[in-house]
Amino acid sequence: MSATPDTVSAAILVIGDEILSGRTKDKNIGTIADYLTAAGIDLREVRIVPDEAAMIVEAINALRARYTYLFTTGGIGPTHDDITADCVAEAFGIGIDVDERARAMLLERIKPEDLNEARLRMARIPFGADLIPNSISKAPGFRIGNVIVMAGVPAIMQAMLDAVGPTLTGGAAMQSVTVEAHGIPEGTYAGELGAIAKRHGAVSIGSYPMMTPEGFRNRIVARARDDGSLAAAVAEIEALVARLSD
Amino acid sequence: MSATPDTVSAAILVIGDEILSGRTKDKNIGTIADYLTAAGIDLREVRIVPDEAAMIVEAINALRARYTYLFTTGGIGPTHDDITADCVAEAFGIGIDVDERARAMLLERIKPEDLNEARLRMARIPFGADLIPNSISKAPGFRIGNVIVMAGVPAIMQAMLDAVGPTLTGGAAMQSVTVEAHGIPEGTYAGELGAIAKRHGAVSIGSYPMMTPEGFRNRIVARARDDGSLAAAVAEIEALVARLSD
Repeated sequence: MSATPDTVSAAILVIGDEILSGRTKDKNIGTIADYLTAAGIDLREVRIVPDEAAMIVEAINALRARYTYLFTTGGIGPTHDDITADCVAEAFGIGIDVDERARAMLLERIKPEDLNEARLRMARIPFGADLIPNSISKAPGFRIGNVIVMAGVPAIMQAMLDAVGPTLTGGAAMQSVTVEAHGIPEGTYAGELGAIAKRHGAVSIGSYPMMTPEGFRNRIVARARDDGSLAAAVAEIEALVARLSD
Repeated sequence: MSATPDTVSAAILVIGDEILSGRTKDKNIGTIADYLTAAGIDLREVRIVPDEAAMIVEAINALRARYTYLFTTGGIGPTHDDITADCVAEAFGIGIDVDERARAMLLERIKPEDLNEARLRMARIPFGADLIPNSISKAPGFRIGNVIVMAGVPAIMQAMLDAVGPTLTGGAAMQSVTVEAHGIPEGTYAGELGAIAKRHGAVSIGSYPMMTPEGFRNRIVARARDDGSLAAAVAEIEALVARLSD
């Protein structure tokens, strides 16, 4: 499916050496993908980069220019490798400093005498950003322009996504219908399925083989924003599967 | 950690609408990340793009120019949305057609009368590529230049990775030491940890909070190729944790 001007698009930028080394397995991409699909926002691209300023800044600028929204995860804690907020400021060419609203949020959880320089890093927010509350550990995320900066810890990321979600402009939600084709090998229906896809340009049609203990189990998924277009394509797919099942 | 000229680097390009829609949760990134780390190859970047030729070609060319190896997953099946091989050929500016070696592999599993046009798509290989055997469903992956093209189904991807692994040039394997800091809040050690990281430039030091039912549990991970550098940094980290635990 191609992006059309009336769609709302998004990208995700995952920031962190620990994902690239394999030490931590990312769970946020799938969570955000599900969330955006339900909101009618097209997730168009994901990038994962290490904790290096040049790569983070480059990715922020490439993705925020190209999509309606950019969501980042990771790199907003108190340690030296948490450089996301500074990179966002650099990407936008704006200043960054301790934000008094953010400091107040930290003080809901941290005693004043424990609010050392490292912890105060979590209150460094680019000028002009809106804060995203963090119901779990208080240190906020933020939004500036179309860039939404969230934590990497999955439970905190989820809390921030829930907080920022209602402020997003959603598109028409993508409708999806799955046709089970289990008994039929993918290569048997692929030619005719391609012809159906060509006839229904507004419908995104994919074929997804999965391995199960009983062998491959194939599913055909049709997705579209418009119910009528979707129903017409699904009717043809179901007729194809029924004919090949005989 | 910055890439130095003697390191071997890699990127992963995951191709597929089903990952971006959230319908399928990617498992290949973590598998390949673990594999590369063990082989001493630095995974530096990951991108996920939809089944659209322009985006696939752009990503292939950006990533193959920048890193020692590029691994792709997905889009090499028999259906109309499987366009990875054609995109690789386009990215390299070379031709593509049915490869007789690949056709022979398909015929190990598929009867000649069932080898229709759709299934033959799985034998379309860019000119000059080396095939990567697929012990599970026979349809091969391939390697051309520094680009390694694999299936998206995790079990098949794993079989292809195992097949291609011994042909890769590995770097010195990255050594990793984890120091448990559970009792100590991240914000308490962050300042001094940053100073240690600054003193040990050859060592990549990260701090990773995890939420557990008992609250945050923090781990400090130090990584380096050189044992001596690593040991020196770890000694300082352990001393820091021991002092703060008192």
